[in-house]
Amino acid sequence: MRRLKLVIEYDGSQLCGWQRQKNGPSVQGHVEEVISRLVGHPVSVTGASRTDAGVHARGQVAICAIDNAIPERGLRRATNAELPPSIALVDVAMAPENWHPRFSSTGKHYRYHVLTRENRSPFEHGRMWHVGLPMDLAAIERALPSFIGTHDFEAFRASGCDAPSSIREIFSLTATQVSPDCLQFDIRGNAFLRNMVRIIVGTLVDIGLAREISHDIPALIASRDRKRTGQTAPPDGLTLMEVFYSGARPFIWR
Amino acid sequence: MRRLKLVIEYDGSQLCGWQRQKNGPSVQGHVEEVISRLVGHPVSVTGASRTDAGVHARGQVAICAIDNAIPERGLRRATNAELPPSIALVDVAMAPENWHPRFSSTGKHYRYHVLTRENRSPFEHGRMWHVGLPMDLAAIERALPSFIGTHDFEAFRASGCDAPSSIREIFSLTATQVSPDCLQFDIRGNAFLRNMVRIIVGTLVDIGLAREISHDIPALIASRDRKRTGQTAPPDGLTLMEVFYSGARPFIWR
Repeated sequence: MRRLKLVIEYDGSQLCGWQRQKNGPSVQGHVEEVISRLVGHPVSVTGASRTDAGVHARGQVAICAIDNAIPERGLRRATNAELPPSIALVDVAMAPENWHPRFSSTGKHYRYHVLTRENRSPFEHGRMWHVGLPMDLAAIERALPSFIGTHDFEAFRASGCDAPSSIREIFSLTATQVSPDCLQFDIRGNAFLRNMVRIIVGTLVDIGLAREISHDIPALIASRDRKRTGQTAPPDGLTLMEVFYSGARPFIWR
Repeated sequence: MRRLKLVIEYDGSQLCGWQRQKNGPSVQGHVEEVISRLVGHPVSVTGASRTDAGVHARGQVAICAIDNAIPERGLRRATNAELPPSIALVDVAMAPENWHPRFSSTGKHYRYHVLTRENRSPFEHGRMWHVGLPMDLAAIERALPSFIGTHDFEAFRASGCDAPSSIREIFSLTATQVSPDCLQFDIRGNAFLRNMVRIIVGTLVDIGLAREISHDIPALIASRDRKRTGQTAPPDGLTLMEVFYSGARPFIWR
């Protein structure tokens, strides 16, 4: 059996998430179905991140084992010819020995886009959170540094999250006005709790809109109280950009 | 009756073009239907450019006359609440006296995106032409200047085009590598023949791919022969960016 590392892109707006589902089209389901057919035996694909319905990826990483001599390039091209337009296999390579997409990962980079203009955008439908209001970027920027480092993020995880520990390390967190209409958040960390990125972004947007919320991030973190933090940003604006693997911490630009 | 100037954005990938059609969803049809319902009488909307099926717009301009005191901002917001996600009304204003979106126009700016990477992109499906091959940008750049100015573009119009004259002026034409994967063409001119932008882009791409085609643009123009020019680029990559109205020629950056 050849163990292959896959890099996958997808527009998640019409998908029910990474994980195979009985009731809707998933990325894992589509990729498994196409590769199984191409190699002639059932293939299971394991991803680094189980992204939610509506979340996008430009660098999802996965592994599968195949019993077929098809060259990597041929497998990539044949798979892309059969996958739906919303999913593309952008790289296929031999997986390193003992490598696992999730357990070998040293961190991830997520990006989040907020549309601040009043009019919704036909081009960003399903791809940005349409907040539709200008935000106080300076207030958001003042809140960012307190997230960085190793903290107990109990107040920033969804109620259904069953991770045994809520301690995570954030390597970097930035907010950038990439156009007059669009605010972009970039967050890199060793791992993320369920909805953690979306609750952090929702909290920062609540701060930017001067909604009733504490701007004292260390106090919010210390409270361990989900009721004190902000709204959960919708999945639309969220993209898994990259999964990190080297033992070394990735280069961070702030 | 109040004459209103509308600015409209749309992702044309699931639309059958600007013009109202019996057999599919058009931009004009959707906008007329929603505004008629809101103001309580039949409204017809006339656009500056009859974009083809699959073509996008960030600055389509149109006019309509309404017999209703609704404020412009209220009409814009109410219309956007009812239009499908692929269409948005981004500006509504009183139309100047004697102004017409097409006849008063002094020119237009179209943009065209080509995806050059081998893998197709889930995010650019329907929005870029997936050529999937690297191109010789220097060869393309050498061809650009000969298009600029007033010429007979007979060799660059679709066979069904019934414009009485094929003489048009191109103000500017540029090719920019906006990312490692994407080549962007920007063309500004006083008016365009049917498929003229798409045939110019198709010809430039054929030159960039070193396909069998003359690189001598003045000779191609002089030939007035559509069989000597390149392929018609698909509608997917084309966006109407802006319609010009001032008597003065718009500022051009090359």
